Amino acid sequence: MLAEILTFGDELCRGEVVDTNSSWLAAELWDLDVTCGWMTSCRDVAADMREALRQACGRAEVVVCSGGLGPTEDDLTVDVLAELVGAEPVTHQPSLQRLEARFAASSYRIVPNTLRQVRVPGGARVYDNPAGLAPGFEVTLNGVPVMCTPGVPRELKAIFEASLRGRLLELRDGGGLPSARIARRIYRTFGAGESHIATALEGVLGGAAGATLHYQVAFPETLVKVVVRDPDPDAAAARLAELDSAVRERLGALCYGEGQDSLAAALGRALAARGLTLATAESCTGGMVGGLLTAVPGSSRYYGGGAICYSNEEKVRQLGVSEATLAAHGAVSEECAREMAAGMRGRSGADVAVSVTGVAGPDGGSAEKPVGLVWLAVAGPGEAVTSRRFVWPGARDQIRALAAHSALALVLRALDAAASR
Amino acid sequence: MLAEILTFGDELCRGEVVDTNSSWLAAELWDLDVTCGWMTSCRDVAADMREALRQACGRAEVVVCSGGLGPTEDDLTVDVLAELVGAEPVTHQPSLQRLEARFAASSYRIVPNTLRQVRVPGGARVYDNPAGLAPGFEVTLNGVPVMCTPGVPRELKAIFEASLRGRLLELRDGGGLPSARIARRIYRTFGAGESHIATALEGVLGGAAGATLHYQVAFPETLVKVVVRDPDPDAAAARLAELDSAVRERLGALCYGEGQDSLAAALGRALAARGLTLATAESCTGGMVGGLLTAVPGSSRYYGGGAICYSNEEKVRQLGVSEATLAAHGAVSEECAREMAAGMRGRSGADVAVSVTGVAGPDGGSAEKPVGLVWLAVAGPGEAVTSRRFVWPGARDQIRALAAHSALALVLRALDAAASR
Repeated sequence: MLAEILTFGDELCRGEVVDTNSSWLAAELWDLDVTCGWMTSCRDVAADMREALRQACGRAEVVVCSGGLGPTEDDLTVDVLAELVGAEPVTHQPSLQRLEARFAASSYRIVPNTLRQVRVPGGARVYDNPAGLAPGFEVTLNGVPVMCTPGVPRELKAIFEASLRGRLLELRDGGGLPSARIARRIYRTFGAGESHIATALEGVLGGAAGATLHYQVAFPETLVKVVVRDPDPDAAAARLAELDSAVRERLGALCYGEGQDSLAAALGRALAARGLTLATAESCTGGMVGGLLTAVPGSSRYYGGGAICYSNEEKVRQLGVSEATLAAHGAVSEECAREMAAGMRGRSGADVAVSVTGVAGPDGGSAEKPVGLVWLAVAGPGEAVTSRRFVWPGARDQIRALAAHSALALVLRALDAAASR
Repeated sequence: MLAEILTFGDELCRGEVVDTNSSWLAAELWDLDVTCGWMTSCRDVAADMREALRQACGRAEVVVCSGGLGPTEDDLTVDVLAELVGAEPVTHQPSLQRLEARFAASSYRIVPNTLRQVRVPGGARVYDNPAGLAPGFEVTLNGVPVMCTPGVPRELKAIFEASLRGRLLELRDGGGLPSARIARRIYRTFGAGESHIATALEGVLGGAAGATLHYQVAFPETLVKVVVRDPDPDAAAARLAELDSAVRERLGALCYGEGQDSLAAALGRALAARGLTLATAESCTGGMVGGLLTAVPGSSRYYGGGAICYSNEEKVRQLGVSEATLAAHGAVSEECAREMAAGMRGRSGADVAVSVTGVAGPDGGSAEKPVGLVWLAVAGPGEAVTSRRFVWPGARDQIRALAAHSALALVLRALDAAASR
């Protein structure tokens, strides 16, 4: 099945926003064995939108659109498609009720424009939006199904997961063509770059029929995708399962999870399984480690809190780091990192504590302690205190993201080491 | 002048690579007062590339392409354009000599495919590649200049800076049309949705000639862009300056800065200007407020640190919140928020402390305290303690992002209130 993707928005054609929706959709289509032939972006100009829709419907068997479903006057997707299919825009009552309920429960007020986003072309098949207010919908244009979603990436993804993926499979399999079934697994890795991981996995597929390997950088992580295609879904799944142990063996400790997993969630599972609690002591990451940990729902089971000790005074006050250590070695030092972790563990009563101290830049570096130098330490479980030094290239935000994720990875490693003792 | 952007590559249409070239080029064009109408990506399929080129040349006055200039058999841009203009692909001798010199200096060997990338369509205007091997070039198709660059972002940018920008200006000004100069300002706002802000700004331009208003959601913020076009750059700048006070008056406290500013940086400037220090006490945001503050280089001047108190025990231990308050009102309450802020201020010695406590969900909500309920409090400057209640719709990460940004906004407001007392 041949598909096209259309994205609408002045902000795209002015270069104010990078269009990540098209590539996300294209990857999802590819996984469904649907080939995306063209991806087109145009402005919020009705004539251009009409032309883009007519062209796409003249070439493809299905068209997926995003953008132009918001509340402002330049959101034209409903109006353009209603006109093209000879219908009127109508208010979708269930979406209106959801909008009214949401606004009533919140501190926002409904203004007239607000209601534009709950309209759909009359007669359209409507797809609920689990992540926002504007519903998705589908109309048929010149015999080709055209599916529309909002341009907000999380809303597009939510509608795709909830409705569009199933609908695309239905269209694909209803076409009568023998289509390959796809089995895939995404391995999430942290701690090595794409070229390092590609080298580690060289030849791992061993010529398995229909199997391919793909890489995607999701900084600071690298995702490895193994895909198997076979007309028989069971055969595809079986071949994927066969490859799994070989891929995992090659990736080793670099791989912490699969699919939509996160490093913080993987660490949370490891802590919860062992009945351990964690505390954090952060200098250069300024709370990012705590932010990552608490992004996981239910993290209160194993995370009670931490200290942000950006200044030396706070390292002394909150963690009991000694003035002598700071004077002799400075705040960015192995000694300080270890005292931070041990101090946090002792004061909080947590089973494990992790600390981060470093030079995030752009200023503050020296020959001895360059920008990018970061010390991490983990105290516990038990009496063990481990520490590790990194020097990363890159900008302030990259160094901080690497430091925060490395802190999580170091705790995971300390738990594994303790378990194997 | 109306332009179109074309990007060629199978990897784009499989979603393996996000197309950042198109948005980069679109932003550059916009700054040259060249309007990009369409951005199209298609696969490395000669028939599709021909169709994309013909369509673009039928609509636009100039076309900029990227991709398909590499050494492999699926790099078809030279062949397709040569055929369309009725020429043969020819080797560009200066580029060949550069390639041979480069290879001689390295351990790589030239294989026949290597030479594909130094070809151009016969008769093309050639643009040197300061960052790589494959030259850019320009041909004229149906009277429309078509400029081609490699798809590697670094090479595309290098050729654009070295040659294409100047060539586009030449085409723009040679067209005989008086081209507008652009003055623009981006206002950064936080605290209200796009539709609310659009309502607040309705009619603010008052029909000023050549002035337009644009909105962009950068969750949890909304950006407002005012653009003025005029053949006379001074007139454009003057009209923008005239509109500035009206726009600011309408936006009021919602607007915290301009351009690439951030709320944390704006707060940092306000603290530094008053010589005040800030500390943070976070429950449901788990360190995100500290993370935002320390994302700003130099934040150590006014931020010493904070406490992450995810559990009740840590609220008592680190901040001295009373057990009685927690028992009577719970952790998500005005009383707790105020004790957190006051406790943090007292213990840290900071001039101002801000606290956040709420129900981020997805679980843990009740009829009385639903998911999305967040209490914020600010202690200081001086003896003042202020607090504010929010109920936000949305998912866990949205509620947390809104809470963290609102904490910064509330401190800014407290500083302003103190200054006006």
